[in-house]
Amino acid sequence: MSKGTVVLAYSGGLDTSCILVWLKEQGYDVITFLANIGQDEDFEAARKKAESLGAKKVFIEDLRSEFVEDFIWPTVQANAVYEDRYLLGTAVARPCISRRQVEIARREGAQFVSHGATGKGNDQIRFELTCYALYPEVEIIAPWRIPEFYNRFRGRKDLMEYAQQHGIPVPVTPRAPWSMDANLMHISYESGILENPKSHAPADLYLMTKNPENSPNAPDVLEIEFRNGVPVKVTNEKEGTSKDSPLEIFSYLNVIGGKHGVGRIDIVENRFIGMKSRGIYETPGGTILLKAHLDIETFTMDKEVRRIKQGLGIKFSELVYNGFWYSPECDFVRHCIAKSQDNVEGKVQLSVFKGQVYILGRESPKSLYNEELVSMDVQGDYDPCDASGFIRINAVRLREHHRLQGLSGTNSAKK
Amino acid sequence: MSKGTVVLAYSGGLDTSCILVWLKEQGYDVITFLANIGQDEDFEAARKKAESLGAKKVFIEDLRSEFVEDFIWPTVQANAVYEDRYLLGTAVARPCISRRQVEIARREGAQFVSHGATGKGNDQIRFELTCYALYPEVEIIAPWRIPEFYNRFRGRKDLMEYAQQHGIPVPVTPRAPWSMDANLMHISYESGILENPKSHAPADLYLMTKNPENSPNAPDVLEIEFRNGVPVKVTNEKEGTSKDSPLEIFSYLNVIGGKHGVGRIDIVENRFIGMKSRGIYETPGGTILLKAHLDIETFTMDKEVRRIKQGLGIKFSELVYNGFWYSPECDFVRHCIAKSQDNVEGKVQLSVFKGQVYILGRESPKSLYNEELVSMDVQGDYDPCDASGFIRINAVRLREHHRLQGLSGTNSAKK
Amino acid sequence: MSKGTVVLAYSGGLDTSCILVWLKEQGYDVITFLANIGQDEDFEAARKKAESLGAKKVFIEDLRSEFVEDFIWPTVQANAVYEDRYLLGTAVARPCISRRQVEIARREGAQFVSHGATGKGNDQIRFELTCYALYPEVEIIAPWRIPEFYNRFRGRKDLMEYAQQHGIPVPVTPRAPWSMDANLMHISYESGILENPKSHAPADLYLMTKNPENSPNAPDVLEIEFRNGVPVKVTNEKEGTSKDSPLEIFSYLNVIGGKHGVGRIDIVENRFIGMKSRGIYETPGGTILLKAHLDIETFTMDKEVRRIKQGLGIKFSELVYNGFWYSPECDFVRHCIAKSQDNVEGKVQLSVFKGQVYILGRESPKSLYNEELVSMDVQGDYDPCDASGFIRINAVRLREHHRLQGLSGTNSAKK
Amino acid sequence: MSKGTVVLAYSGGLDTSCILVWLKEQGYDVITFLANIGQDEDFEAARKKAESLGAKKVFIEDLRSEFVEDFIWPTVQANAVYEDRYLLGTAVARPCISRRQVEIARREGAQFVSHGATGKGNDQIRFELTCYALYPEVEIIAPWRIPEFYNRFRGRKDLMEYAQQHGIPVPVTPRAPWSMDANLMHISYESGILENPKSHAPADLYLMTKNPENSPNAPDVLEIEFRNGVPVKVTNEKEGTSKDSPLEIFSYLNVIGGKHGVGRIDIVENRFIGMKSRGIYETPGGTILLKAHLDIETFTMDKEVRRIKQGLGIKFSELVYNGFWYSPECDFVRHCIAKSQDNVEGKVQLSVFKGQVYILGRESPKSLYNEELVSMDVQGDYDPCDASGFIRINAVRLREHHRLQGLSGTNSAKK
Repeated sequence: MSKGTVVLAYSGGLDTSCILVWLKEQGYDVITFLANIGQDEDFEAARKKAESLGAKKVFIEDLRSEFVEDFIWPTVQANAVYEDRYLLGTAVARPCISRRQVEIARREGAQFVSHGATGKGNDQIRFELTCYALYPEVEIIAPWRIPEFYNRFRGRKDLMEYAQQHGIPVPVTPRAPWSMDANLMHISYESGILENPKSHAPADLYLMTKNPENSPNAPDVLEIEFRNGVPVKVTNEKEGTSKDSPLEIFSYLNVIGGKHGVGRIDIVENRFIGMKSRGIYETPGGTILLKAHLDIETFTMDKEVRRIKQGLGIKFSELVYNGFWYSPECDFVRHCIAKSQDNVEGKVQLSVFKGQVYILGRESPKSLYNEELVSMDVQGDYDPCDASGFIRINAVRLREHHRLQGLSGTNSAKK
Repeated sequence: MSKGTVVLAYSGGLDTSCILVWLKEQGYDVITFLANIGQDEDFEAARKKAESLGAKKVFIEDLRSEFVEDFIWPTVQANAVYEDRYLLGTAVARPCISRRQVEIARREGAQFVSHGATGKGNDQIRFELTCYALYPEVEIIAPWRIPEFYNRFRGRKDLMEYAQQHGIPVPVTPRAPWSMDANLMHISYESGILENPKSHAPADLYLMTKNPENSPNAPDVLEIEFRNGVPVKVTNEKEGTSKDSPLEIFSYLNVIGGKHGVGRIDIVENRFIGMKSRGIYETPGGTILLKAHLDIETFTMDKEVRRIKQGLGIKFSELVYNGFWYSPECDFVRHCIAKSQDNVEGKVQLSVFKGQVYILGRESPKSLYNEELVSMDVQGDYDPCDASGFIRINAVRLREHHRLQGLSGTNSAKK
Repeated sequence: MSKGTVVLAYSGGLDTSCILVWLKEQGYDVITFLANIGQDEDFEAARKKAESLGAKKVFIEDLRSEFVEDFIWPTVQANAVYEDRYLLGTAVARPCISRRQVEIARREGAQFVSHGATGKGNDQIRFELTCYALYPEVEIIAPWRIPEFYNRFRGRKDLMEYAQQHGIPVPVTPRAPWSMDANLMHISYESGILENPKSHAPADLYLMTKNPENSPNAPDVLEIEFRNGVPVKVTNEKEGTSKDSPLEIFSYLNVIGGKHGVGRIDIVENRFIGMKSRGIYETPGGTILLKAHLDIETFTMDKEVRRIKQGLGIKFSELVYNGFWYSPECDFVRHCIAKSQDNVEGKVQLSVFKGQVYILGRESPKSLYNEELVSMDVQGDYDPCDASGFIRINAVRLREHHRLQGLSGTNSAKK
Repeated sequence: MSKGTVVLAYSGGLDTSCILVWLKEQGYDVITFLANIGQDEDFEAARKKAESLGAKKVFIEDLRSEFVEDFIWPTVQANAVYEDRYLLGTAVARPCISRRQVEIARREGAQFVSHGATGKGNDQIRFELTCYALYPEVEIIAPWRIPEFYNRFRGRKDLMEYAQQHGIPVPVTPRAPWSMDANLMHISYESGILENPKSHAPADLYLMTKNPENSPNAPDVLEIEFRNGVPVKVTNEKEGTSKDSPLEIFSYLNVIGGKHGVGRIDIVENRFIGMKSRGIYETPGGTILLKAHLDIETFTMDKEVRRIKQGLGIKFSELVYNGFWYSPECDFVRHCIAKSQDNVEGKVQLSVFKGQVYILGRESPKSLYNEELVSMDVQGDYDPCDASGFIRINAVRLREHHRLQGLSGTNSAKK
């Protein structure tokens, strides 16, 4: 008699294959779900593997377009960067995957969902908060947090043995001495030899971007057109290529960014659970978009709106990193940020070269830039005398402060 | 009979030479003050020029060390970046210059100070707020905001004519079709042909950084050591060179950054007076330091302290940009930021190549990074079961929210 | 020949009557505009006075309903309080008045607007920023900042003399030794004898609220019903009275608040221009609404949304205080705050007594309050074991911090 | 053989008496610790009770002075208010108690600490985060989260039975139909009949404050003197009484506030664990101090410093509420807030009457208030013309925004 049905987020790899079999051993019916979010994977092989291991049903779904439109685009609008450097490529994929996983679970009448995320990481939180938010009654089976499981599988060797015993195909190529997570937006590398924060990443680590030392010696020049703060078209000025659907735009930016080695970072970041961890990321297309969006946004957005929106963007980044995509506050912040993008429209020209993105120029029908007003050669509708009053009024407070300090004998300049 | 004594911030160029003579014409005694903050200038020639034009006294002062220690270092601690991109190279120099200008004015008994900043820019504000803050009774003569002056000198041609009439040496080399401001930290370019935000910067514009297309094909690898959030030593790992005084460290980072074309940006920014303006900046050493400091800071600082400090750093950047270095709030924020740097100590290895800075590794005696705790292979002092409770408690609120939404028939996942 | 037409914000008092005549003297055609925003005024007398003094046209307009709905309601949604205490009664009235003034100016083809606000206050800024925002080409005549005017009228005596010379009726009752500003939302008192921050306000100062020492010895109990964060109905539980239009609701709350002496404060505040000033305010209805709205908002709004919204509310308060009601950032913030109020719906019971508002209870169809979940006597859908994991994960970071501090020999508990 | 030694936070009540005996049953040696933080308690009776129930050692310690100086004073400096209303009387007491509990545990060589806080509340978190922060290796026994315990004691009846079986004295007076927590700063009431958010609190609930309906018909007038943002003296102007030690000052303010019914609130708040709960609080002395401190702070602190500090104060309140008093971020924030109080010095006069605190006046040797500068009757060192430039520069951005909106045909005034 079955304990019930589990929808397992299945990757096709050793870990989740063992989990699949183990869940069956525990008495569950297992439905596997594999999301195509742009990772390099043999999806058909994964389907066959899951079926052969006894999955009751196998779902493999192409989520790439909704990943770009529903998840990556809002991070572009937000200039989302966690702790000043990480572009959230993994964090933003998790709610996309779990949303579908939960839909399948509801549709298939499954009371359980399961995943192979570890017990020290952020992903477990991102997966599960999404599940709880969208399917509050769901029960979650996280084997790597269940003592019977993690005590049984204390290392890769135990998994290999279990696989051999249960007819699970075992990977033949030796594993890299680190773990990685790949999707359309980025590849992340961590663990293993990377856990020592002092040791440098090996040169052959990166899969998505070319080493800038070997990248082309001539730049590509792109024009990216934005509307409502998201790209609607990208044109390669030299080649004349152009793309205008979200998935094509983003994929093309990955190609160009990857070719020129754009978007590599090596950081120590703070996980939600309070540990510091070292991660290496490559985010080629996302990095180009971040730079281009920053440019068109400042060009078209009022400065005080921008200041408030900047704070909301930092908040958004923290929420996404911590797994709160589906939360009332993230809904609220996304709504506010989207509102701020009403006039973020125009074209940005940029060149991509040797790991860098250089903004070259920009234009917009909605810019607040007024060339006549700002010109050093034309007075325009501006009276320089006004600045005297502006400065003197701004100084009222500073002069009072000095007066008081003078009274108490201190001198702020020396502080 | 003299109207009084003016201390004029003198650059040696055409504008401030004309202002010097004009001020004398108006009946003032003029003392010139020229600060060496690292710009490329023939200071002795400037001295002679000022004397020949009738300056009562000429002060030329080397402020480079105090510029680095008192002004650049706090921006490094703050990760100061205005509007996500501008490293504040001009903004941070202004209070350094004006502080000395005001000291001279007080010492020389001058009631007036003057400068050649224009009426549409930020610099007038930065100069004058510093003056008012440190010398509240001072009177400021800003010729470019005085109708008699700016109506008389409507263009460069008028200045040239005036110069010829008054024996002011006229520059013989043709002027670049833009204006620039240079100091130890950066060179900025704006105005003229750059005022069109769409037109690309000419390749020969940059003076401080090599074009990455022509920069060396091999990186330099540096190790920067920090204490209290400021660099105390830089070592070139290949060459074995090392520097350990603030001015030498910063200058050396400029050399390396410049050689590899690091720190070029082209942005539209928001001036304090509410205009958008286009600026091009190159900040080689500052860019290297920003990246290195971000790395060592996140490595050593608690994440929640960092979050609060990040907000203070943004505030600090706005204050510095707007000219409020000498204000009670900037004093306060600097104090708080400095406090946050108590444990920001350690070494960062990085490579500099083709316009980019790549962090390679880091180490610190004060890191909060715990390799055993975070390891995927070791459990350490961490019970994965705890994460289940952590996630479920974080989900309490999300599940309640869903319950309410369910009652009202909406579905947050579809939003 | 006329210099053009001015729309003058006219109060009927001595100052603006003198300004009316003075503007005519200067060669302007003058249209007067007097807004009824709930102040106690003989509007017909003011009309006759303006006509007799030569106003070309006289507009007297009842803005009370739009004042409540377009201006006061958003401040209720925002819990708008400046510097933790001031409910913005004057600040919020200014854009309401100026919006109409500018509409009249456009309609009447007037190039000028004028007002009687002084040169040290906030109101000049609030009036003028509204005018510039909504009618950018307008020219503003602010007599109290024009040397010919303020040097001529150095004190009340000069105005009285001028009035007598020009047939302007002179007030017969002696003026209070302070100035006041009244509207539907509040009365403010400042200047004169109140300028000494140490001297206590005289007991007979307050016009809108009863002295709590003499107020009724029994409370009134009200129920206020909210939808979208604004009141839609108020019911006096004892008397059975109820009101349900915005203007009636707000006026009734003023009556009840006034009767019980609610909403008196005596503060020193920071003006936009950088001065500290002492103000005394009475805001009876607004104070009741603030308390009631805080209650229903926390009852119905997610806590993290509330936290973000709290920051936006503080920002909103600063913007309104400083005169930026009509600015892109205030538009943006109002939009975000309004969005946050989608579920702020329900009823609050409260009692009003002796200067205080006591919340008694609340109910809502949209509350996130779950009595079963929170109950100490019922477990509900909550596993207390989860809290252990939650706490331990929250402690990971604190324990690491302590470990580091232990290494360096300090002890955080002693700090 | 003992499992080890537990230091139990003991209240003398039924719950912790049962826990004491239960812990012994489980094989622990139990040391009880009872902190005197100002609650109304028969400490000697509690000592005897603990001894009679088999406590190995009994510690009863008077922490009232350190509670005021180390914990309440920083909340006064911060104007700490959680969610705009709750003055944190319970939250601030928890780290004070646990700090000592942990000191005792270390000194006595106890590996365990225990408490009687429930599994749904905030206090468990506040206690335990303090313990983990100050004694990272400690193990915590929280019986109300241990299934064997909470399943055995499902209600008060089970505790009573257990008590009778084990010779634990059973309370003879019937329990109030709510729970309360009392200390020097406040009494809180929650649970039981208060769990229905709609039902009004019974009139006889409050123990610390008089019902304003029965409070004196004449106010008390106090002068509170501050230095560094904390009170150093309070004087009753009528009676001439004055207090000048922290504990005496705070106790006296409780007496006066209690006599006049000051500081009662009824709120629904958001617990850290994501539930909303209803609480009723009375904080007489704290409420008076909050109002007085707000007054003297705004009087003496620069407005922009205040704005930044206000944000830090809100952050501080959240941290304290959530139990993070001993965290790096709370250390940091406390340090910054304390720094901001350097000049917060002076005297505030206020009257206390019928539940309200009315500020009457203030004076300070360090005020930034400049009576001459702000006066309507004196020009002082202020040129009103400056305000024109100030306003026009502030309008530059607004006018540009309007220009753009005009182009796109929208009208911000109508939004």
